[in-house]
Amino acid sequence: MLNEVRFVPDELVIEWADGEQSGFYALWLRDHCQMSASRHSANGQRLINVSDFPESLSIGQVNRLSEDRLEVVFEPDGHRSIFEAQWLRRHCYTLNEPWDDRSESAKTLWQADCFSGGLVRTDYDEYGHSREVRRDCLQSVQTLGFALLGNVPCESGAVLDVIRSFGFVRETNYGELFDVRSVVDPNNLAFSNLGLGCHADNPYRDPVPTVQLLHCLASSTEGGDSILVDGFRAAAILREEAPEDFELLTGHYLNYRFQDASTDLRSRVPMIELDDRGRITKVRYNNRSIDTILLPPAVIKPFYRAYRHYARILERPELKLTFRLNPGDLMVFDNTRIMHARTGYQAGGERHLQGAYADLDGLYSTLAVLQRETRPAAIGRAS
Amino acid sequence: MLNEVRFVPDELVIEWADGEQSGFYALWLRDHCQMSASRHSANGQRLINVSDFPESLSIGQVNRLSEDRLEVVFEPDGHRSIFEAQWLRRHCYTLNEPWDDRSESAKTLWQADCFSGGLVRTDYDEYGHSREVRRDCLQSVQTLGFALLGNVPCESGAVLDVIRSFGFVRETNYGELFDVRSVVDPNNLAFSNLGLGCHADNPYRDPVPTVQLLHCLASSTEGGDSILVDGFRAAAILREEAPEDFELLTGHYLNYRFQDASTDLRSRVPMIELDDRGRITKVRYNNRSIDTILLPPAVIKPFYRAYRHYARILERPELKLTFRLNPGDLMVFDNTRIMHARTGYQAGGERHLQGAYADLDGLYSTLAVLQRETRPAAIGRAS
Repeated sequence: MLNEVRFVPDELVIEWADGEQSGFYALWLRDHCQMSASRHSANGQRLINVSDFPESLSIGQVNRLSEDRLEVVFEPDGHRSIFEAQWLRRHCYTLNEPWDDRSESAKTLWQADCFSGGLVRTDYDEYGHSREVRRDCLQSVQTLGFALLGNVPCESGAVLDVIRSFGFVRETNYGELFDVRSVVDPNNLAFSNLGLGCHADNPYRDPVPTVQLLHCLASSTEGGDSILVDGFRAAAILREEAPEDFELLTGHYLNYRFQDASTDLRSRVPMIELDDRGRITKVRYNNRSIDTILLPPAVIKPFYRAYRHYARILERPELKLTFRLNPGDLMVFDNTRIMHARTGYQAGGERHLQGAYADLDGLYSTLAVLQRETRPAAIGRAS
Repeated sequence: MLNEVRFVPDELVIEWADGEQSGFYALWLRDHCQMSASRHSANGQRLINVSDFPESLSIGQVNRLSEDRLEVVFEPDGHRSIFEAQWLRRHCYTLNEPWDDRSESAKTLWQADCFSGGLVRTDYDEYGHSREVRRDCLQSVQTLGFALLGNVPCESGAVLDVIRSFGFVRETNYGELFDVRSVVDPNNLAFSNLGLGCHADNPYRDPVPTVQLLHCLASSTEGGDSILVDGFRAAAILREEAPEDFELLTGHYLNYRFQDASTDLRSRVPMIELDDRGRITKVRYNNRSIDTILLPPAVIKPFYRAYRHYARILERPELKLTFRLNPGDLMVFDNTRIMHARTGYQAGGERHLQGAYADLDGLYSTLAVLQRETRPAAIGRAS
């Protein structure tokens, strides 16, 4: 595996048998020491702090212990670290990309016709009994941004059982769960029979709930169909059609607000959020709860152009995945990516959904554990 | 109040009696229409969407209805909006700053000697009985990043009652609450008797819990003192001492990770997070749970310089507010700003804290409601 190993005081360089080359800065190497003096044996957490290393830290000596093990002796303190060659190869910053499960790079962007073959509804009984089925369902939330379950018992609170299967309930001022049906004088338009345009929930909340679930308990109205839109796809279209509009929506934060008798929630966040590499990581869109738009006067006019452009992309029919939630159906979706909407419905008949919020960190952790249990080969990827 | 009112098709301009001037872009004005056709009467949410306005929207006519009311007639659809002059003054983008309760601009940054007069412990009984006391305590979390309660009953679970007084529990893999005391083979070093350097909790969780509470149930050990550091202050010092180091830590995301038998949490986030105006809004620091550092090779060396610089600032004695949590004491702090640490302690004696997480959005909402109830004058500031 190792071909040539050489070093200067502040860098170790390895040439691998396959012709690749890795560099290791001395301080990085010391900071990533895997010995028991540096890492807690039970939990792998670091026992060392970069502030503790001597200012003049350098590599004094490198000993090849075997074909696949190196010992590095640091100066001036004489600390010895033994590294497996395979570990170095898998963790070097020269050849490996950082972990990323949130940005557009880790997703499959979609539009409505990607599902022209029909939507998969995972049977809830199978979901409960099979780790593979649970894994695939949660994987769908990670990749597509949503998953559909069928045959979930039409009982109040079942949505909370679904959350407990992968994570934790995020309680809010709407309660642990909330009922979505027509009420007189609703505190939120969601609780009326009006159609709702594409939106993400709770942009006025920071941190925003990152997972939403909607469970259908009754559905006999005319209308009231569900619509999902891939917000990452919509943002990517905006970037392609008008990079300057994309830049305006990523570069300027907006205030959102929700108030009622016992609540006053306010946030200041962008419509489209990027990571350090300029990749889309989160979108928010909710015309109902945008507070007064206060931007520098010179920005207002171009900002509205960009905002309207984005709003119109979100309304394009080809992006809208429209389907009927029937009693027992439950959708789980990534509220930082997927916009949802519904068509209006008549007062006659009954439409009753129960909703609840949860978070992606718990869901992805459960997915990772299911992956290591159901695909043993994946363990090697862990760091 | 109004002095002169004039308009061109795409802008209304008001000169106020005090000499100030406001401009209102036609589309902004239409989007902020307060009439019942545009806003739901019960909850104030927008019924209109920017994508619905005609492409050629403009101001056709402006009628001064009285000293303090204007009617704007829009072309081509003839929509009429009546605005109160006072509303226009308070909401115009020319003279008003956006709402911000998260960035460094909304905080009082501190170091240890700011508390040389002693720390205020709010009596829990008074907290429960007085809205003013609750308001001031939550205000302290918003401004200073932390608050201390005293005389909280030394009963298991009391920390959850405190959370329910201002918001909602954020349950995690550690449970609704977690016990901090020495255990054999801890899954996390927090559950050992080792000293812990300055850190924020759960950087491997995204969204990170934004509020942490620690409630002392027993404390008879030698050592085990609590330390708080204002992370915003530390980051501001870094920016002052070395803007290039500050830029490296804000511009490059890191991976964090926590694993045990049933959990695998991973994130990709910056150590110091800025808003669209370059102001510090969130900090994370936790040397124990930083995963393999994978950055472009050219960045590794300067990044480590910046990282060490920041780590050493966090260890400066003048930043460390050190105090003893006695039985019945409970600290609440903003986990996106305040770093905490503890000194190591001997195995003899007992040290038992209960911790739990919550979120800032609920806390700030409760604070805002208490402010409008206890200071009626503040209502006028609401939008």
